[in-house]
Amino acid sequence: MRNDGPPPGRTDRTMRSGDFSAHVAHEILVRLRERQPRVHAITNAVAKNFTANMLLAAGAVPSMTIVADEVADFTRRADALLVNLGTLDTERRAAIPLAIAAAEDAALPWLLDPVFVDASPRRLAIAQQLLARKPKVLRANAAEFEALARRPADRKGAIDLARERGCIVALTGPTDIVTDGRHSIFIANGHRLMARVTAMGCAATAVVAACLAVSDDALLATASGLAIMGIAAEVAGEKAGGPGTFPPLLLDALDALDDAAIAARLRCEQ
Amino acid sequence: MRNDGPPPGRTDRTMRSGDFSAHVAHEILVRLRERQPRVHAITNAVAKNFTANMLLAAGAVPSMTIVADEVADFTRRADALLVNLGTLDTERRAAIPLAIAAAEDAALPWLLDPVFVDASPRRLAIAQQLLARKPKVLRANAAEFEALARRPADRKGAIDLARERGCIVALTGPTDIVTDGRHSIFIANGHRLMARVTAMGCAATAVVAACLAVSDDALLATASGLAIMGIAAEVAGEKAGGPGTFPPLLLDALDALDDAAIAARLRCEQ
Amino acid sequence: MRNDGPPPGRTDRTMRSGDFSAHVAHEILVRLRERQPRVHAITNAVAKNFTANMLLAAGAVPSMTIVADEVADFTRRADALLVNLGTLDTERRAAIPLAIAAAEDAALPWLLDPVFVDASPRRLAIAQQLLARKPKVLRANAAEFEALARRPADRKGAIDLARERGCIVALTGPTDIVTDGRHSIFIANGHRLMARVTAMGCAATAVVAACLAVSDDALLATASGLAIMGIAAEVAGEKAGGPGTFPPLLLDALDALDDAAIAARLRCEQ
Repeated sequence: MRNDGPPPGRTDRTMRSGDFSAHVAHEILVRLRERQPRVHAITNAVAKNFTANMLLAAGAVPSMTIVADEVADFTRRADALLVNLGTLDTERRAAIPLAIAAAEDAALPWLLDPVFVDASPRRLAIAQQLLARKPKVLRANAAEFEALARRPADRKGAIDLARERGCIVALTGPTDIVTDGRHSIFIANGHRLMARVTAMGCAATAVVAACLAVSDDALLATASGLAIMGIAAEVAGEKAGGPGTFPPLLLDALDALDDAAIAARLRCEQ
Repeated sequence: MRNDGPPPGRTDRTMRSGDFSAHVAHEILVRLRERQPRVHAITNAVAKNFTANMLLAAGAVPSMTIVADEVADFTRRADALLVNLGTLDTERRAAIPLAIAAAEDAALPWLLDPVFVDASPRRLAIAQQLLARKPKVLRANAAEFEALARRPADRKGAIDLARERGCIVALTGPTDIVTDGRHSIFIANGHRLMARVTAMGCAATAVVAACLAVSDDALLATASGLAIMGIAAEVAGEKAGGPGTFPPLLLDALDALDDAAIAARLRCEQ
Repeated sequence: MRNDGPPPGRTDRTMRSGDFSAHVAHEILVRLRERQPRVHAITNAVAKNFTANMLLAAGAVPSMTIVADEVADFTRRADALLVNLGTLDTERRAAIPLAIAAAEDAALPWLLDPVFVDASPRRLAIAQQLLARKPKVLRANAAEFEALARRPADRKGAIDLARERGCIVALTGPTDIVTDGRHSIFIANGHRLMARVTAMGCAATAVVAACLAVSDDALLATASGLAIMGIAAEVAGEKAGGPGTFPPLLLDALDALDDAAIAARLRCEQ
């Protein structure tokens, strides 16, 4: 599963699905820092601050308003939209369709993160309606995937859902599966402390949103976002004294991440 | 006031009110890590992220939604419910009775943290209605206790309120008083930096909620939660450079807390 | 632009506009720690936790509720009011006029922080209505200032707006301009990492609110708040490993800030 960086002769290719490598992930990260894309993040109350800081550490510029008469204005000036269903209060629920409509009008990529749909029938129904509006990327953990897709949370399930829905599926876990239904990328980066801190998955999806804003290849952008996040987590996890010092160190690591660290640490298969 | 761990011959007893000791607190902590209880925390906007991370560091699994058509589903699948009245917005206010009803149906323990009832007559009235619904534990500081109980915030006041209401009263301060009206436990752990960081009391009550989920003895569970929190704060306070580095180190310390540290540091009387 | 502390013979003067110095900023900080003023902060969802902790680190006591039937009670018992328009949801929008009315009744200073008015016509209209209610201080960055003032974001624009509106204008950037229309103070403290973390400007305005609560000279109080924040950021920035470890270290630095550090680091012109 280890991939010690791009093989000779591949680093100079134009990005193309099926060609995921440390070079691609680094190129996306460089673009984030240069272009500073705006990400409008409609996300849950627990994750807002950490998500904003993860986006800033990645090079992006966050905005987070959810009120009905402003959300379209903020979305239209953004470069990508994140729709996260955690702690789905009434005002955010009303904002989401307005933001998606604005994203569609402006031809922006938008991502769906159906947090805890396995815990609430009402939220599951909302997530199913949103999935029908064709997000560019669906990011879910195993429990959320199974509830939403009514399929096993495995490679075949992810590929089938991606084909059926025409979107990228990112099924995250010890190994992340990223697939558009034709090509699949498997990423085994990350650190055990990620599961000990709230909003890590939410923030990872936000970083993926930023990556989508700087690449036309949504599969490579999604894989890059998850790889960058997982590698920064490994760097931080080696220094952290526990789940409290881990998030600040993760932000530091993401901010400082370079091509050498990505090449040395990327563990992927495709 | 210092208690250098459990005396000989007591460490192997079954937990029973009146038998609080470092051994009991450690046993509760071990259960948290093994059973990973779910805590549904209806808490204030300022405290959400830190509370979720404190619960995770203690071994528990947080959820935090407040919307009316989801809160009962989340409560029913939890093992304990926290009701915190800080920044009590309209949606949360509507959610609380629904969550309490779900907790009653599912026979879950629930806790009341009447934040700042001394500052708002409206909130005080809500807190009095909620107290009448018989939480398992009421946690308050002196100002909140006096406003809610209309009694002095002292040992006698706490015991009288516990008897009158049939709940555990945890009156927190330099020395925490934990009483069911018959037995009382006094815990003198903690660190001065706890008062310099927002949401520390809110997070402590959340940790108590997690402890209630793994013990049938609510008095010992409450005392254990406060002791664990106070001892972790002492460990963190010795390393912290101030109120900013203290919370991450507190999470690290709670995650790493072991029987030796609890035995060496517990300061309690009963 | 560097000012190596107060010149001889100035340190013992009573505070008076036009006399800004390290001594003045330190005196305000000492008062914050002694008087522990209450600041009711109506602020955005992303900034709440960090703002509360910055206020506590400065010596102040935060409250943050926004519900209509409580916000006046909380404001009346406070010593200053912050009105921040970030993520301006419906409930907060309704609370703001009630809080301002309570502040006016109680003769409290209140500050306006028109976050992202450049991004939303609706929010800009709200900010213009609020500016007409005469805040003691308006704090804005260049983009927000230009949208709200319809003037260039420069020294002349700030002075003209301050005269027209009869308030202190704090136009923040690499050099902060603080003016009441007659006297102007220019502060060049700060650290590049401030722009890499969310809610830094929001928290700075909150610290200014606390300073207003302990000084009758709003110009000196505003300059002091921004200088204190900028100097603490420099201390923290020298130790931080990146944007993640920077905020905890900033809180530590603000808590520990002393007259020597202020005198050595203040960079101002007037």
